[in-house]
Amino acid sequence: MGEKIPHWLDKQNELNPDHIALETPEGTVMNFNELRRESLEMAESLLEKGIKHGDHVALLAENSSDFPICIHALSYVGATIVLLNIRLTPNELVYQINDAQVNCLITGKQTEVKALEVLDEAEAPVIPVFRMDKVARKAVTDMAHFSKEIDLDQVFTMMYTSGTTGRPKAVMHTYGNHWYSAIASALNLGTGGKDKWLLCLPMFHVSGFSILMKNVIYGMTVHLVNNFDESVINEAIIERGVTHISVVTVMMQRLMNNLQEGGYPTHFRCMLLGGGPVPEPLLHEAASKGIPVFQTYGMTETSSQIATLSPESANQKIGSAGKPLSLAQLWIDNNNADEVGEIIVKGPMVSSGYYNHPSRLETYFRTGDLGYKDSEGFLYVVDRVKDMIISGGENVYPAEIESVLAGYPGVIEAGVTGRRDDKWGEVPVAFLVVDNGKVNQENLIQFCNKRLAKYKVPKEFHKIQQLPRNASNKLMRRELFTVLEKERNYEH
Amino acid sequence: MGEKIPHWLDKQNELNPDHIALETPEGTVMNFNELRRESLEMAESLLEKGIKHGDHVALLAENSSDFPICIHALSYVGATIVLLNIRLTPNELVYQINDAQVNCLITGKQTEVKALEVLDEAEAPVIPVFRMDKVARKAVTDMAHFSKEIDLDQVFTMMYTSGTTGRPKAVMHTYGNHWYSAIASALNLGTGGKDKWLLCLPMFHVSGFSILMKNVIYGMTVHLVNNFDESVINEAIIERGVTHISVVTVMMQRLMNNLQEGGYPTHFRCMLLGGGPVPEPLLHEAASKGIPVFQTYGMTETSSQIATLSPESANQKIGSAGKPLSLAQLWIDNNNADEVGEIIVKGPMVSSGYYNHPSRLETYFRTGDLGYKDSEGFLYVVDRVKDMIISGGENVYPAEIESVLAGYPGVIEAGVTGRRDDKWGEVPVAFLVVDNGKVNQENLIQFCNKRLAKYKVPKEFHKIQQLPRNASNKLMRRELFTVLEKERNYEH
Repeated sequence: MGEKIPHWLDKQNELNPDHIALETPEGTVMNFNELRRESLEMAESLLEKGIKHGDHVALLAENSSDFPICIHALSYVGATIVLLNIRLTPNELVYQINDAQVNCLITGKQTEVKALEVLDEAEAPVIPVFRMDKVARKAVTDMAHFSKEIDLDQVFTMMYTSGTTGRPKAVMHTYGNHWYSAIASALNLGTGGKDKWLLCLPMFHVSGFSILMKNVIYGMTVHLVNNFDESVINEAIIERGVTHISVVTVMMQRLMNNLQEGGYPTHFRCMLLGGGPVPEPLLHEAASKGIPVFQTYGMTETSSQIATLSPESANQKIGSAGKPLSLAQLWIDNNNADEVGEIIVKGPMVSSGYYNHPSRLETYFRTGDLGYKDSEGFLYVVDRVKDMIISGGENVYPAEIESVLAGYPGVIEAGVTGRRDDKWGEVPVAFLVVDNGKVNQENLIQFCNKRLAKYKVPKEFHKIQQLPRNASNKLMRRELFTVLEKERNYEH
Repeated sequence: MGEKIPHWLDKQNELNPDHIALETPEGTVMNFNELRRESLEMAESLLEKGIKHGDHVALLAENSSDFPICIHALSYVGATIVLLNIRLTPNELVYQINDAQVNCLITGKQTEVKALEVLDEAEAPVIPVFRMDKVARKAVTDMAHFSKEIDLDQVFTMMYTSGTTGRPKAVMHTYGNHWYSAIASALNLGTGGKDKWLLCLPMFHVSGFSILMKNVIYGMTVHLVNNFDESVINEAIIERGVTHISVVTVMMQRLMNNLQEGGYPTHFRCMLLGGGPVPEPLLHEAASKGIPVFQTYGMTETSSQIATLSPESANQKIGSAGKPLSLAQLWIDNNNADEVGEIIVKGPMVSSGYYNHPSRLETYFRTGDLGYKDSEGFLYVVDRVKDMIISGGENVYPAEIESVLAGYPGVIEAGVTGRRDDKWGEVPVAFLVVDNGKVNQENLIQFCNKRLAKYKVPKEFHKIQQLPRNASNKLMRRELFTVLEKERNYEH
């Protein structure tokens, strides 16, 4: 049994009942008193439907303002929430629903049909399905039915790792994992009563979910933008007092392209950038526009960011993910400074395990990512262990090559993987999504030769329509050749 | 075993080595890298002197910049620190040193002689004594000797409760108690990289010690003022960028009297006011001068503040100590809202017990203080349970009467206690420290009659030279009659 703290939504209602909890560009505004009441009234309804303490309740839902209400309702009931990615195929969903031993499924408006189809095909026992916006709000009959305290050691959520290889596994997050993650972030970025965080990432991913946690842990307003629209978001930042936003690279690019002369106002103090490697030219562009970019490193297992680079250090440390947050420890599995090794992390925000995979995570979590620390302790994430190419005895990191390729005019995005080679063992091969075929291969090779050691310069270049990505939008480098094959077959 | 986090001073050195950790008005400046190095080098020296993990090391020291170095050194060694009040008598010190099973005593410059005298008189086995400024700094030979992680469940400090009645008891604070207290305060007051907290309270009390904790937990600059001098402090606030200060009532009064036209600059955002009841006129005066006073409620057992009133609510809630902080729960032992009862608290910042008094504190801590919550949940602390007077079946709270008396011109301070009375059971009696005998008793009674119910108006008024206070400066109401007796004997 862990530390117990008052239920965070009760606490915000006690401290700041009139403070705005959630708002949307369309004009929805809900204060903490209303958010709590709605959550409790949904909880009452869920209880009546038979959902009880300890149940595994899956959420398959797009972003909406019902989503946070639903997670707090399930928290009051004491259920564990299984967060499903709405981009998954029916087969993948059935696997996760079975694996997580789900008792009940709650959907959004847009995902109800999909959910019903999935469950029809499943061989699992009948699982009741409710649509969150149709769950009636019922007056609470007895507060004793609901959790008044949060036990930091209790499992609150499960999220499947995107699994670029192998079967996905459910990462279990305790309340404490989410809480310590929010606190570590607060100690890093600072907190204040006027903060407003814009949420445009999927709430079923830890990146979006963690903002809903900060909402109730800090008592901070969250501005919900359910569909990514760069002009809506830029307007919210400029006109609606947004102070923080979390984005992935492609979102940052789109926001920058849409940004008018004059840039962002000074109240906007943090663009938290996660989700993988970032092309350097993009970071330079952001710096030149005065955008307060905080590059981060994190994953589902670490309950979002575990290392962050502040804008003050950004110019000296281009490409770094900064230093491990206040409560986190981070090592490189390599004795020599400046040398690449697997990144190992530890801290109270790190998940203690996968569901049905006991003791998978122990004291230390081996991330499967490769990186190094420079002499001042700044982390550079190099690549996934499993994606590393060994060419003539040299380690070659696809992400480094992709970053260079993405800086070449006309290249929209690039993927790199290895091909067997009799002479070198493996050699790097590039797959490019290009802008109307404007790319000249000779010039591109020269461009690479200036920026990369010879053994890193791809030996082949292929144009493809689209890079293979999984439901979490992660590049699946192992699929690059298969995609090329498919596209060619389609063309013939 | 609790959650483990990286040693907080190592972490600050990792994150912000060049950020100023400690500074003084005299010009001492130490960054986090230097603070860590000095602490480790003192730790090396203490190890050589035989101090080891698990030892109970008493500190009997006035405030100085060696003090924080010493507590971090002892933390690296893994010793438990017993913090002694330098105002205690030799007898009291001997009792605490024996009770806490102290292995070693560390003093300040000014307390060395006292410490040696105390130990000469003690019947305890010989306890080595070191003066902290004379402990050499030695280069670290092996980092493996020192704690790299902090276990939040490990006991870090013991502080004796001031014990207005009975024998003092050592409140044990885990690292977690201090850590959660700092976090709860950060969630309430906000944090930012430019914060600077002025420390002028004794470091051996939890009020001062907690600022040393915030120093390393937030990575925040602390401005040390070792002797209370209102002009030095006001200058520091105005000229040196101080953003926060913790004070008790008499300090606030002196700072206000010294404050020039124009008041404090806007960067100064928090005067945290604790240490007991505050006369209302003083709060009105502070409000009129635009001083951002945060009234608090807390005690050694709660590791400092557990409830705080923000300046925004101060005008509507004069005299309230606000709402329980984010991680705290607080109840009144009484079913009816607005009715007085004993204050009960719970939370991870609440000590789990007293040394040598197992299971004294259980899940809930009964504070021994009386208070009530208004309909909006704001706490009003009324008095100590044991000081309450019952007169004709009515509960009479000395602190309420004292607050009224202190508002009368010419009264410097007032103490109230009960006297046996055949008719009413008990009646309140007032003891006044006055300004050159200017007080007219008839007028004072009229003044009271306007502000207090008849049964609360003191039946006797006595002038005394000084109120009886213990080493923690708490009014000992039970001693009021004894003091009066002594003063009279002295006059005769």
